[in-house]
Amino acid sequence: MLENITSAQLKRMTLKELLALCEEAREVITSTVLKNGGHLSSNLGTVELSVALNYVFDFPKDKLIFDVGHQCYTYKLLTGRYKDFDAIRQKGGISGFPKREESEFDFYNVGHAGTSVSAALGIAKARDIKGENYNVIALIGDGSFNNGLIYEAFNSLRLLNTNVLLILNDNGMSIAPTVGSMHEYLELLSESDERKEKNEKHAKIFERFGFAYDGVYDGNDLEKMIGKLSEVKERLKKESVILHVVTKKGKGYAFCEENPEGTHGISCGGVVETEYSNVLGETLTEIAAHDERVVAVTAAMTSSLGLAHFFKKYPSRSIDVGICEEHATILCASMAAAGLKPYYAVYSTFLQRSFDEIIIDICSQNLPVTLCIDRAGISGADGETHQGVFDLSFLNMIPNLTIAVPKDVEEFAAMLKFSAEFDKPLAIRYPRSGNRLFGIASKLVYGTWEKLICGDGKYAVIACGERALNIAYSAAEELEQIGIKVSVINARFVKPLDYKMLDGLNEKYILTIEDNVLIGGLGALINGYYSDKDKYIKNFAYGDKFIPQGGVAELMEDCGVSVRAVTEYVKQNENR
Amino acid sequence: MLENITSAQLKRMTLKELLALCEEAREVITSTVLKNGGHLSSNLGTVELSVALNYVFDFPKDKLIFDVGHQCYTYKLLTGRYKDFDAIRQKGGISGFPKREESEFDFYNVGHAGTSVSAALGIAKARDIKGENYNVIALIGDGSFNNGLIYEAFNSLRLLNTNVLLILNDNGMSIAPTVGSMHEYLELLSESDERKEKNEKHAKIFERFGFAYDGVYDGNDLEKMIGKLSEVKERLKKESVILHVVTKKGKGYAFCEENPEGTHGISCGGVVETEYSNVLGETLTEIAAHDERVVAVTAAMTSSLGLAHFFKKYPSRSIDVGICEEHATILCASMAAAGLKPYYAVYSTFLQRSFDEIIIDICSQNLPVTLCIDRAGISGADGETHQGVFDLSFLNMIPNLTIAVPKDVEEFAAMLKFSAEFDKPLAIRYPRSGNRLFGIASKLVYGTWEKLICGDGKYAVIACGERALNIAYSAAEELEQIGIKVSVINARFVKPLDYKMLDGLNEKYILTIEDNVLIGGLGALINGYYSDKDKYIKNFAYGDKFIPQGGVAELMEDCGVSVRAVTEYVKQNENR
Repeated sequence: MLENITSAQLKRMTLKELLALCEEAREVITSTVLKNGGHLSSNLGTVELSVALNYVFDFPKDKLIFDVGHQCYTYKLLTGRYKDFDAIRQKGGISGFPKREESEFDFYNVGHAGTSVSAALGIAKARDIKGENYNVIALIGDGSFNNGLIYEAFNSLRLLNTNVLLILNDNGMSIAPTVGSMHEYLELLSESDERKEKNEKHAKIFERFGFAYDGVYDGNDLEKMIGKLSEVKERLKKESVILHVVTKKGKGYAFCEENPEGTHGISCGGVVETEYSNVLGETLTEIAAHDERVVAVTAAMTSSLGLAHFFKKYPSRSIDVGICEEHATILCASMAAAGLKPYYAVYSTFLQRSFDEIIIDICSQNLPVTLCIDRAGISGADGETHQGVFDLSFLNMIPNLTIAVPKDVEEFAAMLKFSAEFDKPLAIRYPRSGNRLFGIASKLVYGTWEKLICGDGKYAVIACGERALNIAYSAAEELEQIGIKVSVINARFVKPLDYKMLDGLNEKYILTIEDNVLIGGLGALINGYYSDKDKYIKNFAYGDKFIPQGGVAELMEDCGVSVRAVTEYVKQNENR
Repeated sequence: MLENITSAQLKRMTLKELLALCEEAREVITSTVLKNGGHLSSNLGTVELSVALNYVFDFPKDKLIFDVGHQCYTYKLLTGRYKDFDAIRQKGGISGFPKREESEFDFYNVGHAGTSVSAALGIAKARDIKGENYNVIALIGDGSFNNGLIYEAFNSLRLLNTNVLLILNDNGMSIAPTVGSMHEYLELLSESDERKEKNEKHAKIFERFGFAYDGVYDGNDLEKMIGKLSEVKERLKKESVILHVVTKKGKGYAFCEENPEGTHGISCGGVVETEYSNVLGETLTEIAAHDERVVAVTAAMTSSLGLAHFFKKYPSRSIDVGICEEHATILCASMAAAGLKPYYAVYSTFLQRSFDEIIIDICSQNLPVTLCIDRAGISGADGETHQGVFDLSFLNMIPNLTIAVPKDVEEFAAMLKFSAEFDKPLAIRYPRSGNRLFGIASKLVYGTWEKLICGDGKYAVIACGERALNIAYSAAEELEQIGIKVSVINARFVKPLDYKMLDGLNEKYILTIEDNVLIGGLGALINGYYSDKDKYIKNFAYGDKFIPQGGVAELMEDCGVSVRAVTEYVKQNENR
C-alpha cells in the first residue's frame, strides 16, 4: 500500500487498512535500516504516531517540525519517498533527516536537539503576521526535551501570542535512558491509571507557560492517537497544546524493544576498525585509578563515547546530564575551578553548542578541562548537520587552548596520558575509528611534531589525524615510485604549532592535509605562519560548503582531500 | 568604615552600623560609577543583599558565584578591594566583573548570562567528591533566569545529588524589563501579602526540580535579609534552596530608581561619536515601512541596539525574547523559512551563544536572516568576557554566509539597504560608535571592495571596519610624508573576498588590518588566498590571548593594531 500512497488515499482508509499500513512501514524501515544503517528503534516507536498525524493533518499545508529528526522515516514513506527509501542515507539518496531541499513536506531542517519548539513558534508567528492559516506541529522526544532551548521557547510562548501543537514523544530514552527531573515529572504524569486527576493536579508546569496539557499514554494505539489528534486539532484554533504521547522505542521488533539503546543507531557493515571511543574508555579508566580528581562528563551518549565501563566502575565520578551540552561544559569548568580534573566527552558536531562556554568558562579562566572530541572530521551518512568538520576552526581561535590530534589509537592513548599531567585547557579530536598504526618517530612532547618520512627537500606534507596522515603516506608512496621523495610530518598538536620545526623546514613547497574545513583550520594556521616567507603552500581541506551524506572516503575524495588530489598537485607542479 | 573592613569586623557590627555601611557603599559606588562608567542601578539594588551575605556566610571559604557578574561591586568593596575601587574598569585596575586572578574571594569568572547555577552545581559536586565542607551560593538576576542554561541546571540538580543555595535577585529588569512566563510566575509568587499560602500553592515548579523555595519580598530590608539567610544557611545542610529576593533596581538614588534601564550601564565621558545603533534603528524602520516581511528580534537589549523606536512603531513585527540568544536565532531562521525577512540584532560577544544555530538553522538552510552585530571588535571596559573580537573568525568558517563590515555609518546604512534585497544569510558587524566618514569610492556591490587610496605599487593595506580603516588612513598619511605612498583598500565584504581585486593587486607587500583576532579573521583569509603566490603579507590583528579591560584605543595599541605598528613595519621593511 505504501508504494504510491497519497494523502487523500490515506485519509480514506479504514482503521484496519491503516494498521496494515503501519505494519508495512515497520517492515520497510527494518529491512532498509539493517541494510543501509540508520536509526531503527526510534522510528519503529513512532510509526502509529506518524500515520495518525498524516491522517488528521494536511501536509504540506500544515507544517511538521521534527526535533533532531532521526524519527522521520515513516513520515518520509507516507509523503512520497517510498521509491527513494532504499537509498536513504547513501550518497545521492534521500536524507535520514528532514530536508527542505528534498521535499515540500520537509519544512525545516534539523539535526541537533531542542530546536523544534523554537522553530514551530517562529513559523506560527510568521503565519500570523502574514495572515495565513495552517497548523504548526513540533514533534520532540523526551531526550531533546532536556535541552535548555525548550525552556527558552516555553518562556516566550505567551509573548509570541501564537498557537502551536507540541507533541512530546516520550519513550524514556535519549540514546541512553533519559535522565533528569523533567523526565521524572513526565513519568509521574503518565504512570497511573487515574490519569485525569493526576494530570489536573500535576500538569501545572506546562500550563504555567501557556500550554494546555493532554496525553495519550499508549501512543502505539493508532485508534487512540487518531482520536486524540483530531480533538487537539480543534483546540489549536484557540490555544497551544502539549500532547504527551508515550511510545515504545523499538516497537514491533522484539530485539529492538529489548535493546533500545543498542538499536538506536545501526551501522551498516564495512571494514572492522578500532574505535577510538574504546581507547578513551580504557585509558581514562586506567588514569582514574591513579588520580582521584578525574571525573567524566557526557551529554546523553555515554556508551557510544566508550565510557560505559568508566561510568560503571566510578559512578561517583561520572555524570551524564542528558542533552545539555552547554551545562555539561560549565560543570566541567567549575569542577576544575574547585580542584577536579574533568573530561568532557562529546561528538564534534554537538560541541558547537558549547562554543561560548569553552571561551568564557574554560579558556578565559585557563582551567584544566580536557575535551575528548569524538566523530571529528567527516562523519558520513548523517549528512550536513552531523559532520564534525568545524572543530579545529572554532577551537583554533580560542586563547589558552591546546589542541591535539592523534595520528592513530596508540597516539590517542599517549595523548590521554599526557592530559593527565597537563593542567590547562586541552582538546583532543579524533574520528570514530581507524585501522592503521604509524609507529612512534619521536616521543610525545607538548607542542612538538614528528617527522614520519624524510624527503629529498623539495616538498613537505604536514598533516594531522589518522585520515589525513593516511593520505599523506599513500601519496608519499605513490610519488616515491616516480622519484619524488616528500617529507611527511605529523602535526599532532595543531595548537600550538611546532614553530621550531616550521622554522627548520627547508622545503619550498608545503602541503597541508586535514579532515576539517580549510577556513581557520591547520592549513590556515600554517599559511599565517609562513605569510611573509618564501614558501608555496597548498592546502588540502574542505571547501566552503556544507558536506552532504555519503561514505567517509567518497566524501573526502569529492572534497578534494584525497591521495589523488595530493599526487596530482605535486605532479603538475613538477611539470610546470 | 569600608576602607579596611574585614570579614571578622563586619560580623561583629550592629544592625545600625551595618545600615551605615550600606549607605557608605552606595555613595562609593555612585560616585565611582559616575566617574569611571560601569553598572550602576543593578549594584545599588543589591547593597543590602551583599552585606547580608557577607554577614551570614564565610567567604572565601564559602563560594559566591555571580551570574553575568556586573552586580558584584558591593561584594568587592567588602572583600578587600575598597582601595582599588577607584580604578575599577580602567586599564590595570580591578575588574567590573568577578575575577579569579584578582582575589581569592572571586571564585569563578562570569560575563554571559545563565552560567551561575551550573557553576555552583559543579563546585558543590567537586566539594562533595573531595569530601570538603563549605557552602556554594549562586546569585542570579531575573533577567538571566530566562536563559535555557537555568533549565539544564535545574533538570540535573537531583541527579548531581548535591546542595546549593540559589538566590534569585528579582528586580523585574534585565537591562530592559524582564519578559516571559517565568517572570510572570515570579511576580505571582511575590505579589501578595498572603505569601505563605500562595507559595505553598504555587512554588511547585521549583520543588519539582528539587529546590525548596523561600522568599524575601523586600530584599532591601537588611534585617530581614540577614534573618532569612541565617535560616537558609541551616537548611542547606540537608537540601538545596532557591531564595527569591525582590530588590529595587537603582535603590537609594532617585534618578536610578526612576530610570533603571537608562542607568543599568553608565558610559564615562569622551568624544561624542555617532552610534551605529542609531543608524540601525533609523534605517531598519525605513526599510520596514516598504517591506512588510521585515521583523526585528532582540534578546533583552532592544534600546542599546537602537531598536526602541522600531519596536514602538511596529510592535507586531518586533520580538524581544529575553536573554535567549539561541532561541532568538532559531526564531529568525524559522520565520525566514516561513517567508519573513528577520533581522537579529545582538552584541558580538553574545552572538557566540548562537554559533551552532547560525550553522545549522540559518546557514545550512541558506535562509535570509540578517545578523546585525553591534559592539564588534574591542568593546573596552568590560574586559575579557565582553570583547567582540572573535566574530569574524567564527563566522568566516560557516558556509553560505556573507559577511559585511561597514567602513562608516553611511556605508552601514547602505549595507542595510543592500540587505533588504539580499535573500541569503548575511552578517553585518560594526563597533559601538565612530566619527569618521570616508566618502564613497565605488558603489556597494556584493562581494566587491573599494580602493580608497591608490599607492605607488609596493604596499597595499587591506582593512575592514572604521577603526581599522582609520589606522590605515593615518598610517598612509604618515608614510606619504616620508615618500611612501601605500594603497588603502576597504574590504567591506570579508566573505566573499573580492578575488578580482586580490588578483589584480600588483603590490608585493600586503598589509591587513582588522579589529578581530588574527586566527580565522580577514587577514587569515587573505593569507590563504595568497598562500602559493609571491606576496609578503603582514597581518595586524589581535594575538592569541584574552584582551583585558581598558580604553579601546589603548587596548588596540597594546595589541599591536595601531598606526605606529603599521608605519614601523613599513619603515623597517624599507630599511632591510
